[in-house]
Amino acid sequence: MKYKQLLRGMLASGFLLMGIQAEAKTVQVTLHAVETDVAYDNKGSTYRAWTFDGKVPGPVVRVTEGDTVEFTLINDKNSKNSHSMDFHAARLDVVEDFESIKPGETKKYTFTADNPGVFFYHCGSDPMIQHIARGMYGVIIVDPKDANALPKADREYVLIQAEHYENPDDKTAMMQNKWSNVVFNGGVFKYDPVHDSEATSWLQAKPGERVRIYFVNAGPNELSSLHPIAGIWDRVYPSGNPKNVQYALQSYLIGAGDAATLDLISPVEGANAIVDHSMRHAHSGAIAVIMFTNDADPEAGRGENILIR
Amino acid sequence: MKYKQLLRGMLASGFLLMGIQAEAKTVQVTLHAVETDVAYDNKGSTYRAWTFDGKVPGPVVRVTEGDTVEFTLINDKNSKNSHSMDFHAARLDVVEDFESIKPGETKKYTFTADNPGVFFYHCGSDPMIQHIARGMYGVIIVDPKDANALPKADREYVLIQAEHYENPDDKTAMMQNKWSNVVFNGGVFKYDPVHDSEATSWLQAKPGERVRIYFVNAGPNELSSLHPIAGIWDRVYPSGNPKNVQYALQSYLIGAGDAATLDLISPVEGANAIVDHSMRHAHSGAIAVIMFTNDADPEAGRGENILIR
Amino acid sequence: MKYKQLLRGMLASGFLLMGIQAEAKTVQVTLHAVETDVAYDNKGSTYRAWTFDGKVPGPVVRVTEGDTVEFTLINDKNSKNSHSMDFHAARLDVVEDFESIKPGETKKYTFTADNPGVFFYHCGSDPMIQHIARGMYGVIIVDPKDANALPKADREYVLIQAEHYENPDDKTAMMQNKWSNVVFNGGVFKYDPVHDSEATSWLQAKPGERVRIYFVNAGPNELSSLHPIAGIWDRVYPSGNPKNVQYALQSYLIGAGDAATLDLISPVEGANAIVDHSMRHAHSGAIAVIMFTNDADPEAGRGENILIR
Repeated sequence: MKYKQLLRGMLASGFLLMGIQAEAKTVQVTLHAVETDVAYDNKGSTYRAWTFDGKVPGPVVRVTEGDTVEFTLINDKNSKNSHSMDFHAARLDVVEDFESIKPGETKKYTFTADNPGVFFYHCGSDPMIQHIARGMYGVIIVDPKDANALPKADREYVLIQAEHYENPDDKTAMMQNKWSNVVFNGGVFKYDPVHDSEATSWLQAKPGERVRIYFVNAGPNELSSLHPIAGIWDRVYPSGNPKNVQYALQSYLIGAGDAATLDLISPVEGANAIVDHSMRHAHSGAIAVIMFTNDADPEAGRGENILIR
Repeated sequence: MKYKQLLRGMLASGFLLMGIQAEAKTVQVTLHAVETDVAYDNKGSTYRAWTFDGKVPGPVVRVTEGDTVEFTLINDKNSKNSHSMDFHAARLDVVEDFESIKPGETKKYTFTADNPGVFFYHCGSDPMIQHIARGMYGVIIVDPKDANALPKADREYVLIQAEHYENPDDKTAMMQNKWSNVVFNGGVFKYDPVHDSEATSWLQAKPGERVRIYFVNAGPNELSSLHPIAGIWDRVYPSGNPKNVQYALQSYLIGAGDAATLDLISPVEGANAIVDHSMRHAHSGAIAVIMFTNDADPEAGRGENILIR
Repeated sequence: MKYKQLLRGMLASGFLLMGIQAEAKTVQVTLHAVETDVAYDNKGSTYRAWTFDGKVPGPVVRVTEGDTVEFTLINDKNSKNSHSMDFHAARLDVVEDFESIKPGETKKYTFTADNPGVFFYHCGSDPMIQHIARGMYGVIIVDPKDANALPKADREYVLIQAEHYENPDDKTAMMQNKWSNVVFNGGVFKYDPVHDSEATSWLQAKPGERVRIYFVNAGPNELSSLHPIAGIWDRVYPSGNPKNVQYALQSYLIGAGDAATLDLISPVEGANAIVDHSMRHAHSGAIAVIMFTNDADPEAGRGENILIR
C-alpha cells in the first residue's frame, strides 16, 4: 500500500516537513496513531503516551496556503484505543471526517489549506481531554502563498504547550484540572538548563535575527500568557494570519486549542526565557531558554530543526 | 400601566426582538425579574432559577446604533430577592441606574446605544456571582447603523455560555469556582445530539452561508476558548464592533462578562461543533452542533429564531 | 555614592515620575528592595511584604520612547532574601541583567525604552511566584515620542491587579492558586466605598473627560477580564502600544504578566466600577470605583496622583 511506503519514509526521516513555496499543490500527509512509552522530563522518566508517529508532539506538518492536503490516519494494530484526527486548518464535517477509527483501521480525508497561519492538530476521540493530555497533538503550519505577507524569519521554532498529568489514566483528575506539570514540546523544563541541569538543548539565534515562534496551546484546559523574559514580542499574529498583526507585545494570551505566531528579535547577545507568565505554569515546567549569540549554530531553527526533539 | 401591556405583549410573543434598520429611534424594553424553576438539561431536570422573563437566558434585546433605549425592570412581587439590570451597552451611573429593587418594585432608566456590537446584560445585585450563576443574563445586540459595516449574515444565532452549579444556593462553591457543568443557552449539551441523544435541536445553515454567532460569556468565573470543530472563524469582532475585525481564527478567547461576534462559513455539507476548547468545559456541556445542509430550514437562524429555546 | 543621593530624593518625594516629552534622554532610575510590613486592606491589616521602595505596588516609573534607562537596584542590607528586577520594557539578557542580588548588594543595568506602552516590572528571583505575590511589582509607562500617537488623556490612573495570599510564606498555596483575595494597587476593595465603608479613596474625573487607565496584571497566576460597570472602554491598547488599538470594548482580557492601556469616557455624571468580571475576583476585592462629577478634584489623576496611595 502506498501510504505504508510514505509512512516508512516519514518515520525514517523522523520528521514531516513540506515547505515548497509556489502555486497550489497536492500534499500527501500520513500519520500513525501509536501508543507507546515516551519521556516527559530531562531524566528520561516515561509515561504511556498516545501519540502521532510515536512522538510527543507529533510531526510538524507544513504546507502552503491553497494546497490540497490528502490526509491518511493509520491507527496502529497494537493500539488499545480508537483514535482520530482533527486539523484546525481544515473546514470539513466533524462527524464523517474526524471520526474515530479502531486499532488496525485507516481513515482518509482531503482538505484545502484555505487560510495561512499556524494551527493545532490533535486526536478528537472521546474522551478528547485524555487523548490530548496523553500526547496526541501537533502543529500544522500553513505558509502564506504570498512570500512577503510576513517579514522574513531568520529562524523558526515550534513550541507546543500542554498540561502533563502524573497519572494519564486518571480522567477525573483531568476534568478537575489537576495537572502535575505544564510542558513545552512534551518535556518538563525541556529547554531550560537554568532550572534543570539535565536539560541539554535550548533555542538559539543571533542578535538581530527575527526568530519566529509557531506556538500552539494544546491544553487540554489551561490558557497560556506567553512572555519572553528580557524580551518583547516584535509582532504577534493570532492564529498566525498575517492580517491579524499586533505590535510590541510583552505577553500574549493563547487559549486551550488555539495557536499564534510570535516574532522575537534580541538587539543584544544573551538569553531570553519564554514562559507562560501564569507563574505556577512556568514553575511547573513551561520555560524555554533562547540563547542569542553571534556563534549560534547555523542549522538551528532551520529546515527540520524547527522542532527540537 | 403601560409597561404591563408592553410586557404582556412581549411574554405573549415569547421573545423580544427589535431590528428596524434606519435612523435613531426610541425603543421601549421591559424585562421582568422572575424566580422560577427552569430546565438545565435535555432530560428536563430543573433548578430554582432567577431569570429575566422566566427564561435562561433572558430575551434577546436588539436595537440599532444610536437608538435610545427606555428600559423598565419589574421585580416580580413573588420574588424572594432584590434584582437589578446591568446592560453592558449602556454608559450610565452604576449606583443610581443599576440599583437593586425589591420584589414588587419597578425601576426605569434610559440610555443611548452609542456603540454597535454585542453586549452582555445581567443582574448586578449582590452577590452578583449568584445572580448570574442562577440565570439572570442575556444579550443585547446593537446593529450598526451603517448596514454595510459588517458583511451580510445569512443566518444568526445567539450562544451564551455560563457555568451551572449543582446547588444554586451554595455561594461558597461559586466563590471556589466549583461548577458542575458549562452550558450554552442554559442547557447541558443543549444542541449536541452526538453527546446527548435527548438533544432535539441544533444550529443549522446551508454550505456557503455566512453564519453569525452572537456570543456572550456570562461566566460568572470562567473564560471561553471558543472554537468551531472542523471549521474556522471567518471573522471575529471583539465586542461585536465592526472596527475590531480579526481574520481566520481557529479559536477566540472571551472572558467572563465579555462578548464577541464570530462568523462561520462552511464550504461543504456536514457538521461543525462549536465548543469551548478548554476540554473540561466542553465535556461538561459546552458543545453546540451546527449542521450545514442544502435543505436547512429556511426559518432557522432568522427573525425570532436566532435564540433556539 | 550617587545612587544613594538619588534614592534619598526619590524616597523623599515618595514617588518616581519622569514625564518630559521630547528627544531621547538618559534617565536614572533607582529602586530599593525592602522587606517590610504593608497594609493590604482598608482596616490596615498588614502582612510581611517584599517591596520596591517599601510600597505595594512599587513607584511608577515613567519615561519616553527612545529614552535610555540607567537602572540601579539596591537590595536593602536588612533583607532576608535575594531580589532582582525584570522590566518588561527592556530587551536584555535574562541571566546577566535580571540576576538576583543578595542583601546589601547593588546591581546596575541599562536599556533603551524602544517601544511605547505600559509594561509590568517585577522581581524575578526564585521562586518568582512568591516574590510577585508578596508585592514586588509595579509599572513602567513608556510614553510615545510622538505626542499625538494617542488621543490626549485628561486624567490618568494606574491600576495593578494581583492575587493576595493569606499566608505569604505558603508557596504551596501559590502553586495551587489558593489566593484569598484579588487586589487593585495592593488593597482589598481599596477604591470601593460601596463594598467597604472603610475605603477612603476612589478614582475621579469629570464627565466627558478621557480617563486613561494604565493597567497591569501582576498575577502571579490569574487572568483579568477587565470591565467598567456602567461604562464601555472607549479604546484599548494591548501592551499600551498605539498601533494596537481596539474600539468600544465592554471587557478586555489581560493575562498574568501582561499590561494594557484602556481609555474610559463617561457622558454623564455618576459612577462606574472597574472590576475583574470573573466574579470571584471582583467579590474578593478587585473593584475600583471611578466617580464622574463636574467638581472632580483638579489634581486627581494628574502628575504624581496617577497612582492613589
